Amino acid sequence: MQNKINIGVIGLGRLGSLYANYLLRSIPQARLLAVSDVKEGVAETFARDNNVPKWFIRHQDLLGEKEIDSVLVVSPTSTHKEVVVEAAGRGKAIFCEKPQGPSLEEVEAMSHAIDQGSVFFQMGFMRRFDKGYAAAKGKIDEGIIGTPIVFKSSSRDPFRPSLEYLEHSGGLITDCGIHDIDLARWFCGEVRSVFSIAGVLAYPELNTIGDVDNAVTTLQFGNGALGVIDMSRSGVYGYDIRTEILGTKGTLQIGYLRETPLLVLKEDGVTHDTVPYFMERFGQAYVAQLQNFVENVTLGRPPAITCADGVEALRISLAATLSLREGRPVAVRNKKN
Amino acid sequence: MQNKINIGVIGLGRLGSLYANYLLRSIPQARLLAVSDVKEGVAETFARDNNVPKWFIRHQDLLGEKEIDSVLVVSPTSTHKEVVVEAAGRGKAIFCEKPQGPSLEEVEAMSHAIDQGSVFFQMGFMRRFDKGYAAAKGKIDEGIIGTPIVFKSSSRDPFRPSLEYLEHSGGLITDCGIHDIDLARWFCGEVRSVFSIAGVLAYPELNTIGDVDNAVTTLQFGNGALGVIDMSRSGVYGYDIRTEILGTKGTLQIGYLRETPLLVLKEDGVTHDTVPYFMERFGQAYVAQLQNFVENVTLGRPPAITCADGVEALRISLAATLSLREGRPVAVRNKKN
Amino acid sequence: MQNKINIGVIGLGRLGSLYANYLLRSIPQARLLAVSDVKEGVAETFARDNNVPKWFIRHQDLLGEKEIDSVLVVSPTSTHKEVVVEAAGRGKAIFCEKPQGPSLEEVEAMSHAIDQGSVFFQMGFMRRFDKGYAAAKGKIDEGIIGTPIVFKSSSRDPFRPSLEYLEHSGGLITDCGIHDIDLARWFCGEVRSVFSIAGVLAYPELNTIGDVDNAVTTLQFGNGALGVIDMSRSGVYGYDIRTEILGTKGTLQIGYLRETPLLVLKEDGVTHDTVPYFMERFGQAYVAQLQNFVENVTLGRPPAITCADGVEALRISLAATLSLREGRPVAVRNKKN
Amino acid sequence: MQNKINIGVIGLGRLGSLYANYLLRSIPQARLLAVSDVKEGVAETFARDNNVPKWFIRHQDLLGEKEIDSVLVVSPTSTHKEVVVEAAGRGKAIFCEKPQGPSLEEVEAMSHAIDQGSVFFQMGFMRRFDKGYAAAKGKIDEGIIGTPIVFKSSSRDPFRPSLEYLEHSGGLITDCGIHDIDLARWFCGEVRSVFSIAGVLAYPELNTIGDVDNAVTTLQFGNGALGVIDMSRSGVYGYDIRTEILGTKGTLQIGYLRETPLLVLKEDGVTHDTVPYFMERFGQAYVAQLQNFVENVTLGRPPAITCADGVEALRISLAATLSLREGRPVAVRNKKN
Repeated sequence: MQNKINIGVIGLGRLGSLYANYLLRSIPQARLLAVSDVKEGVAETFARDNNVPKWFIRHQDLLGEKEIDSVLVVSPTSTHKEVVVEAAGRGKAIFCEKPQGPSLEEVEAMSHAIDQGSVFFQMGFMRRFDKGYAAAKGKIDEGIIGTPIVFKSSSRDPFRPSLEYLEHSGGLITDCGIHDIDLARWFCGEVRSVFSIAGVLAYPELNTIGDVDNAVTTLQFGNGALGVIDMSRSGVYGYDIRTEILGTKGTLQIGYLRETPLLVLKEDGVTHDTVPYFMERFGQAYVAQLQNFVENVTLGRPPAITCADGVEALRISLAATLSLREGRPVAVRNKKN
Repeated sequence: MQNKINIGVIGLGRLGSLYANYLLRSIPQARLLAVSDVKEGVAETFARDNNVPKWFIRHQDLLGEKEIDSVLVVSPTSTHKEVVVEAAGRGKAIFCEKPQGPSLEEVEAMSHAIDQGSVFFQMGFMRRFDKGYAAAKGKIDEGIIGTPIVFKSSSRDPFRPSLEYLEHSGGLITDCGIHDIDLARWFCGEVRSVFSIAGVLAYPELNTIGDVDNAVTTLQFGNGALGVIDMSRSGVYGYDIRTEILGTKGTLQIGYLRETPLLVLKEDGVTHDTVPYFMERFGQAYVAQLQNFVENVTLGRPPAITCADGVEALRISLAATLSLREGRPVAVRNKKN
Repeated sequence: MQNKINIGVIGLGRLGSLYANYLLRSIPQARLLAVSDVKEGVAETFARDNNVPKWFIRHQDLLGEKEIDSVLVVSPTSTHKEVVVEAAGRGKAIFCEKPQGPSLEEVEAMSHAIDQGSVFFQMGFMRRFDKGYAAAKGKIDEGIIGTPIVFKSSSRDPFRPSLEYLEHSGGLITDCGIHDIDLARWFCGEVRSVFSIAGVLAYPELNTIGDVDNAVTTLQFGNGALGVIDMSRSGVYGYDIRTEILGTKGTLQIGYLRETPLLVLKEDGVTHDTVPYFMERFGQAYVAQLQNFVENVTLGRPPAITCADGVEALRISLAATLSLREGRPVAVRNKKN
Repeated sequence: MQNKINIGVIGLGRLGSLYANYLLRSIPQARLLAVSDVKEGVAETFARDNNVPKWFIRHQDLLGEKEIDSVLVVSPTSTHKEVVVEAAGRGKAIFCEKPQGPSLEEVEAMSHAIDQGSVFFQMGFMRRFDKGYAAAKGKIDEGIIGTPIVFKSSSRDPFRPSLEYLEHSGGLITDCGIHDIDLARWFCGEVRSVFSIAGVLAYPELNTIGDVDNAVTTLQFGNGALGVIDMSRSGVYGYDIRTEILGTKGTLQIGYLRETPLLVLKEDGVTHDTVPYFMERFGQAYVAQLQNFVENVTLGRPPAITCADGVEALRISLAATLSLREGRPVAVRNKKN
């Protein structure tokens, strides 16, 4: 326990304050030394309430603290490049929440800075730390289902975010499907080409901002495997995340539909509840992800999810979005293709 | 196919006409030669509608037909002894629907007649021919769960039968629980003692006829294993039959809750239907049971369920009913105890 | 019961003899009057074994029987056009098993002959008669899930058919996916364009015949809804058919994974079996489909599935197969588009 | 947040150190001020590792601290009476882990001291704070299933505890079944009489200490409802806790069988894991229970589970154990009966 690392959290929005709380309560090897948020008073209030020694409005000031070993970058996506490049320049170990950045240019600039600074950088894709997804990865690596040949994944939110949020979200595929795209690469390897169809089928107001509420994207992997992802903002019955990997010797199905372990049986049928939203589904995965980051930094292990993983997921999601606009399959041009 | 057997069906009530229809349509090795029913016109109408060569009002006349090899006894329970004894006297192979008879005296008289006549006799307990129960038996015989040590079974009807029916049913434990009792013996062996609790908890009108609507019976097996059966006439949500056998190396759970393979997911939860009633649950088991009887007779194999099986199940159900009246555990005195 | 119709079955292969048996045993309103099969002796043997009055080698002879009201066309797909056109010319009511025909030209010729003859014609897509699919259709028509916006369907065979069969099957999408395509139209309406990806991922020998073993096809419906179908010949764990329809107010999931109602719980986990193959899954649907055909003919009701339904399903499957070859989305040109 | 209460934890065994950790991390309204444990060094080490201000070997010294408002009694059962009586004398709010005490005399003495001191006392039965059980209670109180008429509960441990533990455990029914007994009272009211059967069926070595490894207990409630509990030390497949409450209008089923949201489908069937042990199943319930205790104390609310609840549960479990020895139903004599 002597090897605690000192962490700073940059950005105290919904996810940022959650991460800060996890650090305080669930990650004994970490010490939350500082928090920053551009909104006046937010960092100070959080720090006072939780006995965090330091607080800042400007992330630059937080990054200037020598004692801080590591930072969690949970500020708005549009700031990620600036923050990460600066943190890399100062030699901090970095955890960066998804989405990594708004454009390939920006995330490639981040990648360059990380390489230059030879700093530790881990991308945040919490699903990889969910017990179900992690167990599936284990089964695949053991060869339980043979060679993966079809990847299927479904991500449904129970309602749409605000239009304000959506306007800067990068669109349904990048904002929501990127999790499935990361899983696709993790389970099946690099993606060669993508094709998407989509529509405004549930919320007509999305037409005003040029986004869609439902989409289907197919993936062709470099090794020939096939993939398909369906995404929805209108899974009104609950938060529904399910993935299947069909291999030559069997298939794996990840996900579940019931939150509370209670079945109600009455004359009109059997009923149970659904999973309300992402924190009920992935709360433990967020903690496990932070725990993993802290352990990797502390023990000098490589990052579980690299900057390149973030770059490739974004590249694929942008190609899938382009396919939507152009109505044709789009090749994914990465270095390996 | 040349070895078809000629069958007569005695009793064309709900189950009798069902059996007759199964013989006509689903059991190619059987030829339905005659039907009888004490109600004027019932047998004649059935026979004419279905091209059955002969029909009778009196079962004696059906039994008098030399061509008939085998009979299904599906007449009211109170007549079983008379019919079976006479059928045994004439050397017919006999299939007898449960309940075998209203009293130990009568079923022991049947047993005696069968022994005397050296005739083939098979009791009807259709659950043994259900795919789930049959597969469970196979697993146990293979040793998959080690030695069975706890037997649990639940039988719930979705509504109560008519008071007219219930008055001559022998009471909840004998009428409904006898299926579970037969399974208990099949899976775990002979029963040494029983204890029951019960109540009129759903249908106050049952007080007028001295029956109960819900009961729990515990079983102690000769080999030390434990058992418990709960029975209900008020499973208002559907027909619910579930059994579990806990062994030293694992457990088996038999049964299911959903009839139609459809899940409905809406804002207020996930819903599916239930199993409506016994024909939806055990229709295929009834056919398999008849098929098995016909094959056993045709091929000279021993009965799958013997007269002794019927006698013992009744003995246990009567002891369990006595326990209810006397408020104490009751020993089951069979020849082996 | 007096209005029995006289039926002839043309083709006594696997499915043909099954249909003939269903007619004999499970459809009381039908009388199986004749069977035909081009293989010497097949029809005669079947007829003698089952007391079918007439048998033929040539379907023309069967169609020449005046007494025959209706025919089931279950001969090889390549013969469908000839048989149907001739049957239509003779005024028979026709049930035609899928696939309707090998090419759009042939099925449009069938359609023309049916219109000319004003005969009753019903296509065979048995899934529509499965309890789960039928109940889903009912829910959709009641508005339970609002407007359907995403259709997902998965069809997996547990092993590949013989290469001989596959060579004349029309390819994976037409042979296997056409069921899902028919469901897509039934639930969501006409299809505007399709896109497919596929591969030889499990059985390299398929390369020799130009077919694939796994495919994913996306569908864009005329009303804007989205669809995706994945098909596999290598669902080695069992016969797995599942469909989901997401609507604006909820979602429906059709299908199941367990055949026998038995759970085995041991130290290494909980286990149950899978659905072996299509007869276990859809046996009752085949019977219900025949029953429906016979009732429609007897009662003068319109066909449940029309010739146009068969034509459109084939048109879509051919477009999806073309997309595979050309690597681009393909518009589906039907009269309504 | 200003109203934090100061808590002392007495006993740092498996459950005690767990509670202490929960207080430190998950209950912001509580301040862990002191810990005690009779084993030399245990309290000191824990306190130093976790920045707990005070530590003691003797619980008397902890209770002597004026600043401490509340104590968690998690020391061995045999010490509960002494600790609780002394804590009550000093006016502390008390949380007492189950089992409350080894004999009715001792727990009634505790009850007396609590009444005398007018102190807050809450019994620990964590299942009431499980999401599934809590939701079931809500449904019952809303009248969703009408009047509860049959209570069924099953508690299975995946292996037997050490013989050392078992020797002082009070026997299977008191040690393990008391949770189900508490639920029975919570859902269905007071118990009038009990009957038990049991055996040494999995671990012959239990004969040396006079305990059993499997048991079934029936309950008759004062209002006529029926109950049955089956308990096992040999649920070798996993930790399996399931409860059902049948009411006049429906039934509720609480519990689940799968820990990780992953299904593995292969040629030999569908498989998933099981729940390993009680912390995986009830970890969140333990936290919620502590949270509830702290809130009740802080806000001046009455205890969620009273001393009388603990006394009655023990009374029933002792009667059920007596029934086992005497082979007869035993009346439960509480003040209301």
